[in-house]
Amino acid sequence: MDIRPIRLDDDGRSVKVIDQRQLPHRLVFADLKSVDDAIIAIEEMFVRGAPLIGVTGAYGVFLAALADPEDDPLMEACDRLKNARPTAVNLVWAVNRALADVLKASPNDRPEAAKAAAARIEEFEVENCRNIGRYGAELIAGIRDQKNGAPVNILTHCNAGWLACIEYGTATAPIYAAAEQGIPVHVWVDETRPLNQGARLTAWELLKAGIPHTVITDNAGGHLMQQGRVDMVIVGTDRTTHTGDVANKIGTYLKALAAKDNDIPFYVALPSSTFDWEISDGREIPIEERNPDEVRYVQGMDREEILSVLVPPEKSPAADYAFDVTPARLVTGFITERGVCRAEAADIRRLFPEEQNS
Amino acid sequence: MDIRPIRLDDDGRSVKVIDQRQLPHRLVFADLKSVDDAIIAIEEMFVRGAPLIGVTGAYGVFLAALADPEDDPLMEACDRLKNARPTAVNLVWAVNRALADVLKASPNDRPEAAKAAAARIEEFEVENCRNIGRYGAELIAGIRDQKNGAPVNILTHCNAGWLACIEYGTATAPIYAAAEQGIPVHVWVDETRPLNQGARLTAWELLKAGIPHTVITDNAGGHLMQQGRVDMVIVGTDRTTHTGDVANKIGTYLKALAAKDNDIPFYVALPSSTFDWEISDGREIPIEERNPDEVRYVQGMDREEILSVLVPPEKSPAADYAFDVTPARLVTGFITERGVCRAEAADIRRLFPEEQNS
Repeated sequence: MDIRPIRLDDDGRSVKVIDQRQLPHRLVFADLKSVDDAIIAIEEMFVRGAPLIGVTGAYGVFLAALADPEDDPLMEACDRLKNARPTAVNLVWAVNRALADVLKASPNDRPEAAKAAAARIEEFEVENCRNIGRYGAELIAGIRDQKNGAPVNILTHCNAGWLACIEYGTATAPIYAAAEQGIPVHVWVDETRPLNQGARLTAWELLKAGIPHTVITDNAGGHLMQQGRVDMVIVGTDRTTHTGDVANKIGTYLKALAAKDNDIPFYVALPSSTFDWEISDGREIPIEERNPDEVRYVQGMDREEILSVLVPPEKSPAADYAFDVTPARLVTGFITERGVCRAEAADIRRLFPEEQNS
Repeated sequence: MDIRPIRLDDDGRSVKVIDQRQLPHRLVFADLKSVDDAIIAIEEMFVRGAPLIGVTGAYGVFLAALADPEDDPLMEACDRLKNARPTAVNLVWAVNRALADVLKASPNDRPEAAKAAAARIEEFEVENCRNIGRYGAELIAGIRDQKNGAPVNILTHCNAGWLACIEYGTATAPIYAAAEQGIPVHVWVDETRPLNQGARLTAWELLKAGIPHTVITDNAGGHLMQQGRVDMVIVGTDRTTHTGDVANKIGTYLKALAAKDNDIPFYVALPSSTFDWEISDGREIPIEERNPDEVRYVQGMDREEILSVLVPPEKSPAADYAFDVTPARLVTGFITERGVCRAEAADIRRLFPEEQNS
């Protein structure tokens, strides 16, 4: 891709992000000039996706250091950043990692130190996604071989593409890598209510990349699996315990159940930054509840205008749960930057022996 | 309720139906003056829901008999009616039942015979729904007793309410009956993409009836079940084999999997007219594929206007599967007009011994 969803502005003092709320209808960039801008961009989902939330958090540390590099205001700003969204662990990971680097520098040097830390985290995630693509494409190639070269049908939920991850993506990296290798693939794109990141963002990415795909309702995946029309599922994750439980976009659990019931491999693609080495039980992961208007109103394009239309009766209450937890027992494996492992503590630890569990 | 979704017009020569496509925003009636009007109303989903499709088919036989009561044109019209939608077996059942009565009369008497047949089928379904409500409310009362009087949380998918069934509904009849008996209930309403019959129709019905409810995305049910916030699931069905496999709105299978995984009772409410006594394997039920624009565009209200907005990129293809099949092994029981039975051939036969299986 020729663009990234986040980049330092040419002035070196602000950050530009794609306002993903307006895709696929308009490609618009927003300027983040302060840590508060960064917090709003995360909370209101200009940016979303675990790796990108993390990188935005790291650039938020830079913006905070620019405004006031002293310990107390910097740490206060970082605490606010880390609380911008509760579920994706990358945000805390990236802010803490940037902050640790920054605090080692003298106040005058902190903006530069923060900028460098954010850039390192950004490139770390790009490299992770590249490797996830490499390992994941091997899995797709294996299925292609079983199918005698017929297209491999991959179902994905939400957007874990380059829009969520700087480049390549997590769940989509194997798909892009497979396509580059000439492996025929077709992607079933769950629209992913309520915010339709599948229909809006994943479909847009795949269209730009020329990869065959079909948008379906979130309800359809089970039926397609029963009909033998899904060869594998690959999703991303917002936080995965070191024991293998996976928090991801609401509805992921339902697809994992259907994959299990139909004996279809269900893979989760993630960089090490998305593992939570503290929590052992997925049920302890905080699940964000968002504004019910995200459920009640649906945004789309009508006559060149982006509009939100009300679907249920005005007076009917709604609830908006953003994530669910898929237990490890339903996950075939993890595709990480260091290779593929089973969804269990020992095999995850085999790939990441340096990590300290609590 | 003070209205029905279908009724004979005062002139006695046409049929009035609620144009359910415009709910909850507008309550508008459409006039069906010919069998072609009836076919369009079924195909384009002015009317929907298995029992109502059946009754509309029966009134379609009446409109056909009015236009031309001779054998050949009447049977040709009935064949077209029966093909208007493929999945709901009630359509074939009701048209054949009306036609059999009509053919016994002389051509001159056929319009009156058809009108009487349609009215009998309509009242049969009303009575069935009343009884489904009675038996289903006993199940809800049982759960209320286990909960020491705390509200019983019932999840439903799509609309199997009075809008789908003349009065009471199938899946909603137990809820209305329980509420009338003073049992505290709260309904999780799956929005039910793509056409949002849950958000638009079930929520509207429950709001009118004053029954506490919350609209959720189709993705959310599994999470709510994991959290212990769903006590039971009740859905309708478009066709159920005599062996217990259930075709219902796309996505039902995913909820059944989640209910099983969380040990939550999953009930299907249906009148005997929705059983298919011929097919023994749910995989043989034809699954309708509809216009992908139903997935790509979402209809709602913006500034007093009903609009459809485009969600994915204009050039991304979509697919629209209308139903899926939930295997009998995932169904706790059927709530029928003759009582509750298990989802297996012998127990269904116990309630309906007169039916001939093929």
